[in-house]
Amino acid sequence: MDVEEVVEKVLQKIRPSDEERAFVQSLMDELKSTAEETIESLGLDVKPYFVGSLAKDTYLAGDHDVDLFLAFPLDTPLEELRSEGLKLGKAIAEKLDSYEVAYAEHPYVRARYRGVSVDLVPCYNVRDWRDVRTAVDRSILHTRWVNEHIRGKNDEVRLLKRFLKGINAYGSEIYVRGFSGYLAEILVIKYGSFLEVVKKADFILRQKIIDPADWLRREPELALKTVKRETEEDKPLIVIDPVDPRRNVSANLSWEKYGRFYFKSHQFLEKPSPEFFFPPKKERGNYLEELRKRGTALVTLLIEVPDMVDDLLFPQLERSARGFEKALQREGFRVLGWNVGRANKAFIMLEVDREKREKIRIKPGPEFFTQRGWDFYRKNTKVWLIGKRLYSEKTVRESVVEVIFELLKKNQVALGKGIRDAIKEAEVLLNYVPKELKEEAYLFLSREKWNLRG
Amino acid sequence: MDVEEVVEKVLQKIRPSDEERAFVQSLMDELKSTAEETIESLGLDVKPYFVGSLAKDTYLAGDHDVDLFLAFPLDTPLEELRSEGLKLGKAIAEKLDSYEVAYAEHPYVRARYRGVSVDLVPCYNVRDWRDVRTAVDRSILHTRWVNEHIRGKNDEVRLLKRFLKGINAYGSEIYVRGFSGYLAEILVIKYGSFLEVVKKADFILRQKIIDPADWLRREPELALKTVKRETEEDKPLIVIDPVDPRRNVSANLSWEKYGRFYFKSHQFLEKPSPEFFFPPKKERGNYLEELRKRGTALVTLLIEVPDMVDDLLFPQLERSARGFEKALQREGFRVLGWNVGRANKAFIMLEVDREKREKIRIKPGPEFFTQRGWDFYRKNTKVWLIGKRLYSEKTVRESVVEVIFELLKKNQVALGKGIRDAIKEAEVLLNYVPKELKEEAYLFLSREKWNLRG
Repeated sequence: MDVEEVVEKVLQKIRPSDEERAFVQSLMDELKSTAEETIESLGLDVKPYFVGSLAKDTYLAGDHDVDLFLAFPLDTPLEELRSEGLKLGKAIAEKLDSYEVAYAEHPYVRARYRGVSVDLVPCYNVRDWRDVRTAVDRSILHTRWVNEHIRGKNDEVRLLKRFLKGINAYGSEIYVRGFSGYLAEILVIKYGSFLEVVKKADFILRQKIIDPADWLRREPELALKTVKRETEEDKPLIVIDPVDPRRNVSANLSWEKYGRFYFKSHQFLEKPSPEFFFPPKKERGNYLEELRKRGTALVTLLIEVPDMVDDLLFPQLERSARGFEKALQREGFRVLGWNVGRANKAFIMLEVDREKREKIRIKPGPEFFTQRGWDFYRKNTKVWLIGKRLYSEKTVRESVVEVIFELLKKNQVALGKGIRDAIKEAEVLLNYVPKELKEEAYLFLSREKWNLRG
Repeated sequence: MDVEEVVEKVLQKIRPSDEERAFVQSLMDELKSTAEETIESLGLDVKPYFVGSLAKDTYLAGDHDVDLFLAFPLDTPLEELRSEGLKLGKAIAEKLDSYEVAYAEHPYVRARYRGVSVDLVPCYNVRDWRDVRTAVDRSILHTRWVNEHIRGKNDEVRLLKRFLKGINAYGSEIYVRGFSGYLAEILVIKYGSFLEVVKKADFILRQKIIDPADWLRREPELALKTVKRETEEDKPLIVIDPVDPRRNVSANLSWEKYGRFYFKSHQFLEKPSPEFFFPPKKERGNYLEELRKRGTALVTLLIEVPDMVDDLLFPQLERSARGFEKALQREGFRVLGWNVGRANKAFIMLEVDREKREKIRIKPGPEFFTQRGWDFYRKNTKVWLIGKRLYSEKTVRESVVEVIFELLKKNQVALGKGIRDAIKEAEVLLNYVPKELKEEAYLFLSREKWNLRG
């Protein structure tokens, strides 16, 4: 199949049908009226805006969650915006099918209406970046900018988004660290088409800085500060936000996800196939078989985490996994890799080189002719010299599970703050995982989870 | 038992009896006549000198090997000294009971006479250090200096020598790196008695430089050069040879052996006992039991070495053991310790953390967006990213024995030059040693071989 055929085939699946468009339009109309009525009835000075992929017409077929932003005047105090915003959200949601309150920087209402998820998010009615006060305020500006510049390339954005999803590089959430929808839109606007973006996977990385709104000329001081900051943090890409020179749109994009895009783009151009957009489910394997073949051991911590969103949980799990890696390394185990996630419970998987270490650890001591040398000599029943330094040995726990328990008891693992206590209570499993983690364990151990050539 | 009692008791054992003295005297008289007659009959201008502990009357009871040096005139060419010296040695030895030719810097004759070993060593008849041309030439000067300064402290030297033997710190051979007899004599001459030397174990180390012949004043330039050189090499002690300002008498003394002397002196003063001089045989243990307790593995290489003196062999075995330590460490085994020696065959023992390592090794690769990144990506069927760096894995041999064979085959172990080929042919045993090495294996694994508190 050549590229054009693939693209056409994929487009048929991801371009919303006329029917779906009509449904979305009626949905937005109804929501808008409901919002306006409610605002009026409450006597508020608030403007409702649709933002996100629906508002930009870059949503994928079947994927039409609504983001309805409730924009308060700039002179509203933050506390009032929080409370009045939530109150207004609830009042609107009362007229929809159901709702719950969710928490990000501020609380907001997540409602359902006609089978669709509708987020009702309070924000400030900003005119430009100078007005931005909360993290969500820019969305209105983003929507406006994309709509002004997209010039009918909406399907190209759809292709790129679907491609990024297919290769597992989509989503700017902190636990994904991939491409955001807005970043995909900017890339298409900048380079003209899905195919051009994919062809430029290497060029974009080397060019490093993308500045579609010409901020480096218009606001050189601020824009350069952004470039400097992001360069120092060694980000793969610096995309100066067209609506805010202080911000790198791809600040959360990791090297791993850019790398996936880099290699998969290359593979796609070499051998185009719809499978890049809709990958077949990976073949399942047996994690126990994998363990046997590798001659390693799998330690799994099952963690009962407090009610915590993935955005908060995942970085903490990752930090804790790295903590275990270091602590176990110090204790004489080699950690070949780790994997974190959430199934029923949160989990940390560690692949270690063995179940049991030797029972003896050699303790290097001080030089023999010092006071500390004498202390060491007296404290140990077995001491010997190598050069001028004393050595001794001690008996230690063998099993990696026991070692983990001991490390936790002695607070010798650097753990994510918010889950420290939960980890101390974790179940620690050796070479065994519950049913719901079997596939995860296999994908981790076989590295198929991350294999770029898979 | 107090110190005096111990000393008296030990002296009774190590001081030669009148009978032994008479035997030694008659032996020396006979040997001297035989040598002189032979020299005359060959028409040589050679002077025979007794050197060593017999000549200095510092030998231990029952330990009276003879060193008879055959001193040639200074104008004898070196080649002539070698050939004529050996010829003369043989001619003398023909009149004794039996002999063989031994090899040090020069060949010499080792004869037996009346049950005693007699070394017949050619050298130059040097008057002082300026004349010294071969390594053995100083012996005549040493003997003379000791006899001029010992002032009846001969038994004190005997005590110190026996003490050093008992604590396993005696002998300046390269594979022992302990105290030489001459060093013991100098220490007694300098500090007055065995007990004073033992009491000054700490002081001597801190003082660092001993200069009994006042070379630092008499030949400051040469003596300071010696001090500088030996300080840079971090020797525990610098004893400027009373007969040669260019030489550190304790150049071969290791920190380990000084450390033994240091701690054992302390223990002896705290709780005097003849056992320091005559240690009871260490309790035997079972090396397999020890292995089980330690949870480690023992690898033993049995090496059929070419005919090689210990002086040459041991440093090569040590270098090779360190080579194995490094190479195995690189391969993922931890080496807890090593031990070398010679029983029937030469051996290298390595205590490693496990018999088998994991079958998988993670291979870190280059950054992904480079040419080397692409090569790495293409060469491996499983690749993934951590940050901007590619990773892959490979399957490796598990067993430490197989790994050793592979390392040897690929020349990836730094081995002692003279035994490289022999090591490549070595038998490699895992957790098993032949009968004659059982005790050695136990003493090594338990560290009783080196335990300062044992």
